[in-house]
Amino acid sequence: MSSARTDQVRAATIEAMTTTTASTAIDEAFERYLDEHAAERLESYKELVRIPSISALPQHAPDCRRTAEWIAADLRHIGMEHVDVSETGGHPIVYADWLHAPGAPTVLVYCHYDVQPVDPLDLWTSPPFEPVVEGHRILGRGVADDKGQLHLHLRATEALLATRGSLPVNLKFAFEGEEESSSVHLDPWLNANRDRLSADFAVISDTGFFEGNLPAITIGLRGMMYAQVDVTGTAVDLHSGGYGGAVQNPANALATIIAGLKGPDGRILVPGFYDDVVAMTQVDRDAFAALPFDEAAYLERLGLPALFGEEGYTTLERRGARPTLDVNGLWSGFQGEGGKTIIPAHAHAKISCRLVPDQDPDRIFEAFRAYVLAIAPPGVRTEVQSLGGGHPSVTPIDHPATRAAARALEATFGREPLYIREGGSIPVCASFENELDLPVVLLGFDPPDQQAHAPNEWMDLRNYETGIRTVARMWDEVAALGRDAFAR
Amino acid sequence: MSSARTDQVRAATIEAMTTTTASTAIDEAFERYLDEHAAERLESYKELVRIPSISALPQHAPDCRRTAEWIAADLRHIGMEHVDVSETGGHPIVYADWLHAPGAPTVLVYCHYDVQPVDPLDLWTSPPFEPVVEGHRILGRGVADDKGQLHLHLRATEALLATRGSLPVNLKFAFEGEEESSSVHLDPWLNANRDRLSADFAVISDTGFFEGNLPAITIGLRGMMYAQVDVTGTAVDLHSGGYGGAVQNPANALATIIAGLKGPDGRILVPGFYDDVVAMTQVDRDAFAALPFDEAAYLERLGLPALFGEEGYTTLERRGARPTLDVNGLWSGFQGEGGKTIIPAHAHAKISCRLVPDQDPDRIFEAFRAYVLAIAPPGVRTEVQSLGGGHPSVTPIDHPATRAAARALEATFGREPLYIREGGSIPVCASFENELDLPVVLLGFDPPDQQAHAPNEWMDLRNYETGIRTVARMWDEVAALGRDAFAR
Repeated sequence: MSSARTDQVRAATIEAMTTTTASTAIDEAFERYLDEHAAERLESYKELVRIPSISALPQHAPDCRRTAEWIAADLRHIGMEHVDVSETGGHPIVYADWLHAPGAPTVLVYCHYDVQPVDPLDLWTSPPFEPVVEGHRILGRGVADDKGQLHLHLRATEALLATRGSLPVNLKFAFEGEEESSSVHLDPWLNANRDRLSADFAVISDTGFFEGNLPAITIGLRGMMYAQVDVTGTAVDLHSGGYGGAVQNPANALATIIAGLKGPDGRILVPGFYDDVVAMTQVDRDAFAALPFDEAAYLERLGLPALFGEEGYTTLERRGARPTLDVNGLWSGFQGEGGKTIIPAHAHAKISCRLVPDQDPDRIFEAFRAYVLAIAPPGVRTEVQSLGGGHPSVTPIDHPATRAAARALEATFGREPLYIREGGSIPVCASFENELDLPVVLLGFDPPDQQAHAPNEWMDLRNYETGIRTVARMWDEVAALGRDAFAR
Repeated sequence: MSSARTDQVRAATIEAMTTTTASTAIDEAFERYLDEHAAERLESYKELVRIPSISALPQHAPDCRRTAEWIAADLRHIGMEHVDVSETGGHPIVYADWLHAPGAPTVLVYCHYDVQPVDPLDLWTSPPFEPVVEGHRILGRGVADDKGQLHLHLRATEALLATRGSLPVNLKFAFEGEEESSSVHLDPWLNANRDRLSADFAVISDTGFFEGNLPAITIGLRGMMYAQVDVTGTAVDLHSGGYGGAVQNPANALATIIAGLKGPDGRILVPGFYDDVVAMTQVDRDAFAALPFDEAAYLERLGLPALFGEEGYTTLERRGARPTLDVNGLWSGFQGEGGKTIIPAHAHAKISCRLVPDQDPDRIFEAFRAYVLAIAPPGVRTEVQSLGGGHPSVTPIDHPATRAAARALEATFGREPLYIREGGSIPVCASFENELDLPVVLLGFDPPDQQAHAPNEWMDLRNYETGIRTVARMWDEVAALGRDAFAR
């Protein structure tokens, strides 16, 4: 894109970013501040996205640390205190607070600054770490999941402190750097930092809106079990002519294992897998059925010949309230053009399960491992390793913080939010509930088809902008309730 | 390796290369010539191996042509005539002849100058196209399959012409450049060159010795059907949380397809697959049983927990006389370290079958394709494409050329050869038989565990050296029989 064209797009975007203000004003000074800093805000958002903080890839560890430092500098600049790039043993967690609202509630806000890997790179229409704006969309890895949401919290705080000199609540930030790589260091860190993390409730901004970009509060999240299956034959590939027929083929064996994990009806065949699944009540099923969901449009958008899932459940139930088993990656032998006639030396699969209450990730991993080894064909060696996991969670719909979030969403987006159970997993949600005993509100602004984890991830800049106002308004709503409303 | 050490190894090798001469002498002048040119011969062998003529990879097309030109120059240099780098529409075929033995039989010799891909590159102990000598072994891609065998034919011819000024037989060479990528242009070229390829019989040098490096003549070869299965879901990867449970996973679907191709008893489940398989006679089974085969040592060398194959057949029968189905490569989704929580957009497998008489590769491909589509799970798109194939063949054990080859092997290697049915496929064998109506002798010198198609491919330099003497002696044996012995 030419420089002149870039300037044009940028001007149009800044306009889009500022025209949302009329209907969503918190107060005049706040809005004026946001108006005046629109260009600077977009530039800062892009700057954050440009750092390739892929937590799963060891070579990007310095980038993760650089992102943490960038956020810490920004936090200091806007007036947050006790800013700390806190060591975890892995990628650091950025902590900061502002505690000068005596008698007001204290809120702990969580986002994550790490992002997913970017392959397949050739499917991106622009480089993943060079964010570009197209109309109301900003494209780039992390613009939605979760740097965009982290950034809007920074900007809401900045605008409040700049225009009022204070915040309506006591605010604590914990920004993680390992959410996309199974949060292995999170729980020990939470435990070690229990005192400075004390709060009346937590807000996690890492979720999105419902189909059609309808404002939503997520009240249920699935957990996760992530494993790798490695099937090994000989030390090197064999000639498929010289050895074909005489030895087990690791790739065929792996396929047999994977095929044995699920029935044609979509049921997972791991013994005991469903034992701890809490059955949906009629109320649950009615709530799913009441959501405005156009299955034909959903199918059309996905471009699939048909939807497919566990028999006896609707699509929304399948992705919100039922556990899953998906292969996330497969590799073995020759992947180039043309033909190579080998029996591969080894074959590998990454397989994960989304879990629902009350499934336990460790128990599910053990059941999975035992079953894989039981059905592994003879003549090869099969191993199963854990790549992490997280507990499922359901958050209270009638908590005063949830109600405050709902009022803030309605005031800024012009309609009451939906309450949804989402298929994704945010391990920190269960950790906050279990380790810190904190009620959690899942307040997220991603559009539902944002392509998180895929090429061409995008964020709707209108959601981002209105999100800034929603957060500020929510703090006002929470402050108005007073601390007693959150007594436990 | 230091330069001094290199020189040492090289001297030792040249000694190894020349000490084989005593027991295998054709005539004194011939042996003296080979002695005097041992260092030059090894250098020339390495030079040929250094050109990375991987026919399956388009970026190596210039290397394939360069290899053809290298061979053509060598042929001209040693005194072969009508040398022609002949266009095929793909990689060229090198033709040459020497036709000054009136009344003597005419022999067409086939080898191929293209090689297999080299991945996984990290398992090579030295770079695949930088051949190194370790004791009696030379390592590098193509040192055995098939550049080593091609090169020993060049050197046998060179030594005969240099020492006698003539050859005992009329000799024609056809060196192919697409054997490792399904020989798609071979049959049309054979048909178009029918006249200049006329001969009394053909010798194909692209096979090896039996277990224990025992001299062998291959009398049976399997054919091949090579296919790729592509399973496609959405245009881009999906977040496995947001979509898991609602859509079919292409990688799971591919595993289901592959698992459906074979039963746990090793039988291939494609309907009609075994219809044209000629059942083994008791004579066939007795011949297999009579081969000196140490199954425990074989298993030990492979380092596997157990062998595995079709029920009701021995290991040698399974790999020599029964058809197979093997996955040669698999890929889908995320293959990096750690976890990436996606439903892959697509999944792919390369799958090939080794075929036995009278299976037809085209019929087997159609049956395979129809069955894959029939068992493909719903909710994804499945496609099957052909990557080529070749007919199986069995060559006559009692043909005078086979007998001459046997005598030459016995004279040079000091023991009678075994007659074996090999699992590999050499499409040109069936092509010579069917298109050119030529009897074929499969005279090859590779050690049985040479790791063709795998990392660290190697050739036994003693087989290579003795092979040169075997070829020269065979031409003498054939000439002694006279042309009438080959009348058809």
